[in-house]
Amino acid sequence: MSAVKLEGWRERIRKELDNTVDFWLKYSHDTTHGGFFTCIGRDGKVYDELKYVWLQGRQVWMYCRLYRTMERFHKPEILEAAKAGGAFLRKFARVSGGSGGPWKCAFCLTRDGKALKVQRTVFSECFYIMAMDELSRVTGDKDMQLEAEQMMEQVIYWVRVDSSSLGRPQLPGEVPTNSMAVPMMLLCLVQQLTEGRGQEAAQKYGDLASWCVQQILQHIQRDGTAILENVSLEGAELPGCQGRLQNPGHALEAGWFLLQVSGEQQDEELQRTAINKFVELPYQDGWDKEHGGLFYFLDVDGHCPTQLEWNMKLWWPHCEALIAFLMAYNQTKKPQLLERFSQVYEYTFSHFPDAKSGEWFGYLTQEGKVALDFKGGPFKGFFHVPRCLYMCERMLDDLLANSD
Amino acid sequence: MSAVKLEGWRERIRKELDNTVDFWLKYSHDTTHGGFFTCIGRDGKVYDELKYVWLQGRQVWMYCRLYRTMERFHKPEILEAAKAGGAFLRKFARVSGGSGGPWKCAFCLTRDGKALKVQRTVFSECFYIMAMDELSRVTGDKDMQLEAEQMMEQVIYWVRVDSSSLGRPQLPGEVPTNSMAVPMMLLCLVQQLTEGRGQEAAQKYGDLASWCVQQILQHIQRDGTAILENVSLEGAELPGCQGRLQNPGHALEAGWFLLQVSGEQQDEELQRTAINKFVELPYQDGWDKEHGGLFYFLDVDGHCPTQLEWNMKLWWPHCEALIAFLMAYNQTKKPQLLERFSQVYEYTFSHFPDAKSGEWFGYLTQEGKVALDFKGGPFKGFFHVPRCLYMCERMLDDLLANSD
Repeated sequence: MSAVKLEGWRERIRKELDNTVDFWLKYSHDTTHGGFFTCIGRDGKVYDELKYVWLQGRQVWMYCRLYRTMERFHKPEILEAAKAGGAFLRKFARVSGGSGGPWKCAFCLTRDGKALKVQRTVFSECFYIMAMDELSRVTGDKDMQLEAEQMMEQVIYWVRVDSSSLGRPQLPGEVPTNSMAVPMMLLCLVQQLTEGRGQEAAQKYGDLASWCVQQILQHIQRDGTAILENVSLEGAELPGCQGRLQNPGHALEAGWFLLQVSGEQQDEELQRTAINKFVELPYQDGWDKEHGGLFYFLDVDGHCPTQLEWNMKLWWPHCEALIAFLMAYNQTKKPQLLERFSQVYEYTFSHFPDAKSGEWFGYLTQEGKVALDFKGGPFKGFFHVPRCLYMCERMLDDLLANSD
Repeated sequence: MSAVKLEGWRERIRKELDNTVDFWLKYSHDTTHGGFFTCIGRDGKVYDELKYVWLQGRQVWMYCRLYRTMERFHKPEILEAAKAGGAFLRKFARVSGGSGGPWKCAFCLTRDGKALKVQRTVFSECFYIMAMDELSRVTGDKDMQLEAEQMMEQVIYWVRVDSSSLGRPQLPGEVPTNSMAVPMMLLCLVQQLTEGRGQEAAQKYGDLASWCVQQILQHIQRDGTAILENVSLEGAELPGCQGRLQNPGHALEAGWFLLQVSGEQQDEELQRTAINKFVELPYQDGWDKEHGGLFYFLDVDGHCPTQLEWNMKLWWPHCEALIAFLMAYNQTKKPQLLERFSQVYEYTFSHFPDAKSGEWFGYLTQEGKVALDFKGGPFKGFFHVPRCLYMCERMLDDLLANSD
């Protein structure tokens, strides 16, 4: 693939990133109550004022990451927005007095910060940690870093020791499950908390990182021919729909998480596994040969999934696929991986960006028609699109610098 | 509309009902552990063994209702299937030892009856009541009737006095909500528990029935121009997506529930309201002018709903629409209502039934293509299709008998 091609991609990606940042800076800030609106319609209008904690935390993280690592985003307005979002989270996200103890965060808040929904999982807390750690890096606030690390201890306790204080009753028919989301999320947090902090931090979380990698690898099933989203704690296949479920976008995201680890640790075997099992396989299984794009859910035995949205094309699996293939290519320089990137790029950039009002649509039908036309919703915020564009731009920078 | 037309509909509906009953008798019975499989693929194959309590209860109810009121289904195999389903429910549905007290039912059980999921709502209990009451009518088991009535007292307590033992924490940002499902469900139960039981039963539940009707009528909003799915306890519109949500199929179902009440009570004003507000309006708003069929969700201000399946065409809203229009016509003889029935009938019978393997598909794309091809799933069992066919057949019987 020629440098001209790489250059063209970088140019487009760069423009999309600028445009996306502008969109959220312009439409998502709540200057009255703090925090961010995330339910934003096609043209930027807020259609619901609820504040989802996952998306608040992710937006703080993304602003800080851009501010800290990309010169053109090192601007006071981005720092101020991140700080305002962080202040809102610190003031309101933690649910006081409920079960779950002092670290439990709400899932959803009213515009003025009152808890509206609490999930009996660890994800709100995880995005809180990501936000606080990254914000502490740009502000130098050591208390904030400490707060992130303390909350991380609580999350580790819930995941690895005892989840009972999350409030979900243990039922006799339940089989303890290794759901891929949990080790992925924790691995992501380890990378966040240890980045650039030297040997001590790496040691502190080293055991957890290995555990996360092992837990993710347990999802390779069927003699290495499929990634399954849920397995038993011992790494065996679970019965029924839950056991047969595949989520190609999630597997691809796990793929690039593993590639980051293999890159840091110079672990070629892990690199091969990441590429062959978590990048190539989900792409092979998940790509719609008729209409293009990645399916949202599949059943490994070919049954129809019970999720009504199974055949829709969502923006985020395509974001993860772009990152995964470009990172795999960057590490190996195998041309086939750049070919795949190119194919995903073509589908993604011809279907998701909204030429009229900016930012990306999130939800297409199987045939590629826009099914939901908002730019932000309860699960789509300032995260997957800018993270993908940011990471791809940087990887293309590397590739172009090294091809010179 | 000519009697020939009515005759033709009745013929088709009768065949579909026979065919649907055969399908479930053939494929859904678990002769090993009792109860019913409900995750049944296109050709009858069980693709998941979990047992959803809503669907277990509904299937018992439907079998009994057919056995009790339609001569051609008064067959030992149907009675035996209903009794076996009832025995499974009585043995396994109630969750012992958890919060919620002795009446709390699970939402989902393993094949052998171990609780797997418990919802912090009242619906599993409601379908348990429907099943037990109807089963007690065919078996003459007074203990079972008493059990249904006792559980009804618990449900009424949760809904009207104190829901805290359901286990959902009260959060500061929550606005107490009148969600249409709750009064609809309770009104349905009142009709079940009082049918044919004379003045005493009617008096016992009279106050509750009036309350349910009033609660349902509170969902008429925007100066009578729209039915909204969620309102405040005082009957005011709620903010945001939740407040603007419309579910046309649900409104149509509420419509025929109200028509049943207005028929029993000879209440012409209620009849007018039911037809104009709960049958005509949701049809006007919910019918897809481009592709036909009823949308699943809409936003009263025209924003895009956040439910990914908002524009899909589901089988059950069409079932409810068929019942609602035929009942409205049966009560008023206004030709326009039979025209509407005819239109919904055309769409429904040309899109949902599976000519190859019997029963109906449940989930179509906006354009009417089958999106999920199974016949039963976690929310589709032996209920909406046969209830619709059963009620329509009986109403057509009435119309034809009176037209002679």
